[in-house]
Amino acid sequence: MIPEEQKVKPGSGRLEALGDGIFAVAMTILVIPLSLPVMHTKSLYEFINAFHEIWTDIICCVISFIVLGIMWFGHHMVFQYVKFINRYFIFLGVLFYMFVCFVPFSTSFLAHNALLWQGQFLYGLNLSMCNITLFIQWKYGINRPSLMPKQLPDVIKKQASFLLLISPVVYIVAIIISTFAPAVSLGIFIITPVLYLVPGKLDQYLP
Amino acid sequence: MIPEEQKVKPGSGRLEALGDGIFAVAMTILVIPLSLPVMHTKSLYEFINAFHEIWTDIICCVISFIVLGIMWFGHHMVFQYVKFINRYFIFLGVLFYMFVCFVPFSTSFLAHNALLWQGQFLYGLNLSMCNITLFIQWKYGINRPSLMPKQLPDVIKKQASFLLLISPVVYIVAIIISTFAPAVSLGIFIITPVLYLVPGKLDQYLP
Amino acid sequence: MIPEEQKVKPGSGRLEALGDGIFAVAMTILVIPLSLPVMHTKSLYEFINAFHEIWTDIICCVISFIVLGIMWFGHHMVFQYVKFINRYFIFLGVLFYMFVCFVPFSTSFLAHNALLWQGQFLYGLNLSMCNITLFIQWKYGINRPSLMPKQLPDVIKKQASFLLLISPVVYIVAIIISTFAPAVSLGIFIITPVLYLVPGKLDQYLP
Amino acid sequence: MIPEEQKVKPGSGRLEALGDGIFAVAMTILVIPLSLPVMHTKSLYEFINAFHEIWTDIICCVISFIVLGIMWFGHHMVFQYVKFINRYFIFLGVLFYMFVCFVPFSTSFLAHNALLWQGQFLYGLNLSMCNITLFIQWKYGINRPSLMPKQLPDVIKKQASFLLLISPVVYIVAIIISTFAPAVSLGIFIITPVLYLVPGKLDQYLP
Repeated sequence: MIPEEQKVKPGSGRLEALGDGIFAVAMTILVIPLSLPVMHTKSLYEFINAFHEIWTDIICCVISFIVLGIMWFGHHMVFQYVKFINRYFIFLGVLFYMFVCFVPFSTSFLAHNALLWQGQFLYGLNLSMCNITLFIQWKYGINRPSLMPKQLPDVIKKQASFLLLISPVVYIVAIIISTFAPAVSLGIFIITPVLYLVPGKLDQYLP
Repeated sequence: MIPEEQKVKPGSGRLEALGDGIFAVAMTILVIPLSLPVMHTKSLYEFINAFHEIWTDIICCVISFIVLGIMWFGHHMVFQYVKFINRYFIFLGVLFYMFVCFVPFSTSFLAHNALLWQGQFLYGLNLSMCNITLFIQWKYGINRPSLMPKQLPDVIKKQASFLLLISPVVYIVAIIISTFAPAVSLGIFIITPVLYLVPGKLDQYLP
Repeated sequence: MIPEEQKVKPGSGRLEALGDGIFAVAMTILVIPLSLPVMHTKSLYEFINAFHEIWTDIICCVISFIVLGIMWFGHHMVFQYVKFINRYFIFLGVLFYMFVCFVPFSTSFLAHNALLWQGQFLYGLNLSMCNITLFIQWKYGINRPSLMPKQLPDVIKKQASFLLLISPVVYIVAIIISTFAPAVSLGIFIITPVLYLVPGKLDQYLP
Repeated sequence: MIPEEQKVKPGSGRLEALGDGIFAVAMTILVIPLSLPVMHTKSLYEFINAFHEIWTDIICCVISFIVLGIMWFGHHMVFQYVKFINRYFIFLGVLFYMFVCFVPFSTSFLAHNALLWQGQFLYGLNLSMCNITLFIQWKYGINRPSLMPKQLPDVIKKQASFLLLISPVVYIVAIIISTFAPAVSLGIFIITPVLYLVPGKLDQYLP
């Protein structure tokens, strides 16, 4: 046995810092591919036209930004309970961050293929993998008292699992719909993040 | 009712860290589009010529850098008072960060269309949206005692609202002027950040 | 002699913050070169084809992401013991960060030359230099009691040196193999990070 | 007069965090322009040739990385003494960060014009402006007891000013030399950061 005073108890602070950095970069580089051409005249028509061409890019970019914002919030909530980290928790975190880093890539593919199932499939798959890996990390953390000093109310356990797993289900439905009605399923991708703004049971636990 | 000890009081620290990351990336990538050609001779004339072509880009880049610096300061001051966060405060923050992330995009469009109303319109709109969302976040925060333990002096309340809302007004005026006298309104975009350097009432509250 | 109260004891916090930022950016920009073409039809075949072309890029990107994650963990563990920093420790850290920043570059070269010794040589060299500089930084830190207030168990000293130095050895073997059997050595690059997931003696010291 | 309890004393923590983020991004994007071509054969000659073409880029990148590392250290030392910030200190910081963000741009210009005075002029000017703005920020900070609770030994005051101002002087000399002997002045740019590694009086104050 290892004597207690030789053990290290790495706090979660630096993993959160790495995550905040990764979210910050991923969110900012979403906007990098956007660009507008040089205008030749003062014509309003030319301006609207130029915008018209990057319209889908902007929409996709905004959706992804809000989705990443929501995921960041989920990730933040995990660390309200998990205060210490070990090797496996870190590796699950790295896996989650990896899928987060792929979001700008799948967003740009969606923007170029917004009304084709391929674009929506890759995007939905990417977002689902983010949520699923975050869910696994959360489950791993809350089942180890050495990582989580605080008691976790059952209602939060259930609500968090629901919030993390509902969107992969929604996205799978959207992907299936995208094969025959892509406009409808694109709408699902747009509406889903908005639904996360509706107040829920979790808010009672927050200030 | 939720028992008090089950509640979590997420501190604002990590939202600030996300914001600092986003500001850092947005400020740094402002400079990425800049590039100078390979020189062929030791001629001073060739050097000045090459500079001459990216001059507008550099000016726009410097303006945006300083404007983002000022916004970062405003954002920083918000968190001198708001110490806890909830879901809505985070979402308002994400919205603010989103408009911040669009600044490199609108800066580059301004650089390519500095003397056309279109460039100034998009840029002015972007900066105004940053200030307005930061204002809404600020208003939301200071009206909830659960987020802000400290008492807020009335003079700061008024000054902060003034500082956050004056620049959208100025930018709207600049946009209108840009349709007939674009050089004048470009001057307004250059001078506005400088005015924020003038000492004001708020400075009395700082060391 | 300098009186004790005039001395500064810079904590390691900000060097860790710089490192977290650098890791976050390096990990995120790994994904930037990835891009998929616009699809022309709903054909599954076209989608698979497009993926087929960037398959090596994705694999290399995933390997590098996990390798950087493991290095980040190693870097994190160093700072569980080293709590103060001086000029030399910082410079060794900057050297380590420099090789980390080169990883996206060597990853992209590997992706384009996955089955040629040149790609594997540069990649293996880069990763080895990361580990070696981290090892030197670690050695420097743990030999100075002024930087490390905590006593370091011998088993950790040995294990950490082993974990930091084993992969350069493996990579050198892989580079040699790559000159006659590149597919085999590529396999080594893929398997090595996975081996770091196997529980080891160090885990007993963690929660 | 403002009652003392209404004042805010913003700590320097977040300005440091913004700076760490900006340094991290600037350092990482130094490496982005580097790229190696696809190899066509297993020939060593082809590999060396490809390297030969980006050799100057790599050297410039390494120099800038180390220079930024040294500047980060200087910046770090400033905050060992300055613990609180006000509006002017922040604006001076933003100015310093702006010149830091320009380093990848001037590095890339140097890489393409390493043996022409133009490249060295822009690079030297950029690095000098970084040091000068950091010097001004430092001077501003240490002359305000409200920002710096700790007493500052005279020897540190002198040494820090010397270290911050010596390199602009060296760079100006290098720029002048570059007009007639560019290889010599390039050598100065390479050697200068190395000289900062020599132990100095400041090290006595560090652990």
